[in-house]
Amino acid sequence: MYSQLCRAGRGQRDGGGGGGGRAAVRPGTGLEAWVASGGDGELELAIDGRLRRFPAVWLRDNCPCAQCLDPGSGQKLHDITDIPEDLTVAAAQDAGESVVVTYAPDGHRSVFSRSWLARHAPAEGSDHRTEDGDPRTEDGKDLWLAADLTPRAPSGPGRRPEGSWPRYLAEPAERARCLDAVLRQGFVLLHDVPAKNGMVLEVAASFGYVRETNYGRLFDVRVEPSPDNLAYTSREILPHTDNPYRDPVPTIQLLHCLRTADDGGDTGLVDGFCAAAALRAADAEAFDLLTQNPVSFGYQDKGAELCASQPLIELSPRGRVRGVRFNNRSALPLRLPYAELARFYPAYRRWAELLARPERRLNLRLGPGDCLVFDNTRILHARTAFSMSQNSAGRHLQGCYADLDGLASTLTVLRRTTGAEREARP
Amino acid sequence: MYSQLCRAGRGQRDGGGGGGGRAAVRPGTGLEAWVASGGDGELELAIDGRLRRFPAVWLRDNCPCAQCLDPGSGQKLHDITDIPEDLTVAAAQDAGESVVVTYAPDGHRSVFSRSWLARHAPAEGSDHRTEDGDPRTEDGKDLWLAADLTPRAPSGPGRRPEGSWPRYLAEPAERARCLDAVLRQGFVLLHDVPAKNGMVLEVAASFGYVRETNYGRLFDVRVEPSPDNLAYTSREILPHTDNPYRDPVPTIQLLHCLRTADDGGDTGLVDGFCAAAALRAADAEAFDLLTQNPVSFGYQDKGAELCASQPLIELSPRGRVRGVRFNNRSALPLRLPYAELARFYPAYRRWAELLARPERRLNLRLGPGDCLVFDNTRILHARTAFSMSQNSAGRHLQGCYADLDGLASTLTVLRRTTGAEREARP
Repeated sequence: MYSQLCRAGRGQRDGGGGGGGRAAVRPGTGLEAWVASGGDGELELAIDGRLRRFPAVWLRDNCPCAQCLDPGSGQKLHDITDIPEDLTVAAAQDAGESVVVTYAPDGHRSVFSRSWLARHAPAEGSDHRTEDGDPRTEDGKDLWLAADLTPRAPSGPGRRPEGSWPRYLAEPAERARCLDAVLRQGFVLLHDVPAKNGMVLEVAASFGYVRETNYGRLFDVRVEPSPDNLAYTSREILPHTDNPYRDPVPTIQLLHCLRTADDGGDTGLVDGFCAAAALRAADAEAFDLLTQNPVSFGYQDKGAELCASQPLIELSPRGRVRGVRFNNRSALPLRLPYAELARFYPAYRRWAELLARPERRLNLRLGPGDCLVFDNTRILHARTAFSMSQNSAGRHLQGCYADLDGLASTLTVLRRTTGAEREARP
Repeated sequence: MYSQLCRAGRGQRDGGGGGGGRAAVRPGTGLEAWVASGGDGELELAIDGRLRRFPAVWLRDNCPCAQCLDPGSGQKLHDITDIPEDLTVAAAQDAGESVVVTYAPDGHRSVFSRSWLARHAPAEGSDHRTEDGDPRTEDGKDLWLAADLTPRAPSGPGRRPEGSWPRYLAEPAERARCLDAVLRQGFVLLHDVPAKNGMVLEVAASFGYVRETNYGRLFDVRVEPSPDNLAYTSREILPHTDNPYRDPVPTIQLLHCLRTADDGGDTGLVDGFCAAAALRAADAEAFDLLTQNPVSFGYQDKGAELCASQPLIELSPRGRVRGVRFNNRSALPLRLPYAELARFYPAYRRWAELLARPERRLNLRLGPGDCLVFDNTRILHARTAFSMSQNSAGRHLQGCYADLDGLASTLTVLRRTTGAEREARP
């Protein structure tokens, strides 16, 4: 059934040549494969005319046979130490849409589909150095300035990510579009969420799980007589992220408007990833200072005392932006050596100025029934001061926290059923 | 009331000398202060005979006056951009236990206690480079091998962190001791937790908040007919961390034993931070490969599809270990360029071998009523295979997730009331 396509030879990594040779190219497929016996003897495969190499241990670690991968759970049944240390590819056979790999010394066999190998082929060279597959970094996002999300003509369609709660509930494709916006633009504004107590928890439950904290499952944002938090006053609050004193920080925040203020209390959103990219381009030294020095944040009331230390701009190990934290209200005294403090503060100020620029701030006025869902590791939120009149009940939002992983999972499962593909990137 | 202690002069940073001068040392206090007018004119203060310098902007950012710091919430009322950019310390005055700082150009005044300044004084030089105040890194932990937590003589007292649930409930100091163990040793074993359905949620609620996931608020670990997860079989499971496909990963896991297996099903714990430190010492190149390359993990069932990418060993921006992820069962195909894959696998194997060493594994046999609480970013857990007999109901654990920040907060608040100080470090 399998036709022998390949024979043993030395891989290119070993200098090529001696003893090795190529199997015939299969006409019409643009695909050829052969085995390297030198060193750790890998599989070599031409995909779309380009040579791709697959280390033996990588292939074996991904073997899809029922001995290696549990058919029920799809989980691997082996640990990395179960793989023979001196593993090589002894033979590779063409089997139509598959390639059958036989390993030495133990004779184990793996059957890989050609399409799977093509999709997962290790890159050659170092061009993939920054592609780390991490969905949380700037690379998977659509960065924006306020104008990017504002209709250019008064009557034109806005690109502001928004949706209607009844449609969101009724139509899986609409739900997928709204959730995708949280991952790509960092937020979505849902309208027509009934302005009822506790509805914010229903919105969270529609895509994930509430992250309960010392503020409760939900918290009321309104003026309190003896506030433990400046959020519970009528003061202006500049762009910030929530709960930087928590670790892990809640990665999603929801704010649902039950009542507006008579005047003021408007919401502003800033794309922290877009701002971080701008800082990196404009002032690499400031960017480095903010990514390399942790800042401690704290919160304290009768029942809680929280403290966490993380840089204001968090990078992936590959140096890509994967989180921002910004909240001077709860920043604790910086503990840096004197010389670094003197360098840090100008960088911190520059970052704050950049975040405060009007062109970065998307202004919204939440009305009763509006619910914002946003990525708290990326989007800073702000509000203008508002007035308190004696005759009205006053501004009242309800908020809660949730996490991005649950939202992303819900979106992926929705796409399985709706068949909706992620919109092609420009 | 305030006696003028100081006068204007050039700070040491500017070369010292010209025009500057010291105020008289206050006899008996070992403390002197003067103002530097050059550059950004900082406060200089001798504390225990050593000169400490405080940048003007740092002082102002930490001003404790009611205009700068909300007396109710303790939160800052200003943003960093509210501080004049050309701020200097114009004068500093001795006021007994306090130092009064007056700034130019705006004449704002801050009163700092001497003890606060001494406690928060910026370090000189670079000796504090790795002290980032981050409670999550290896620096705040007691690293261990199994023998460190095992009684040396059969009758001797074990150092294994454990406690009794009734005492934990009754005595705040006992509760603080148990929670401190989770932060320092990475786990605590609570005995005599009633072996009743759902009790694991009560244990979590005693110190924090349950992190609900697609597995529910709690999950049952027992043999299932069609398991979505290998945890729900009777197979051996090697040391691993849970849910590496989640981001943020749950930072605490609880496992409560309701029923033991007739034979086997023993639990093993490994200190991943201790192992990471050992890898760094033994093989710096392997350590670097594991800290710099993200690995993708995935999980999939009917209702969920999760994916996250993070390095197997996560570092703080200062290069200190702050998390481990290890779970070959759910590791997705590594996407690295060919040359890096060939280097990564030997490092991965070396790490796996190190984690599997018997001297690192603390073996426990959970009995009904035992509840393990452990740091899932640090401690790997494992179990031996177990037998299923026809006549018994079989091994049954209940688990849930929670987070370290809530636990640390509970501990800090407990210490406020019990007056219990964190045990002095050796």
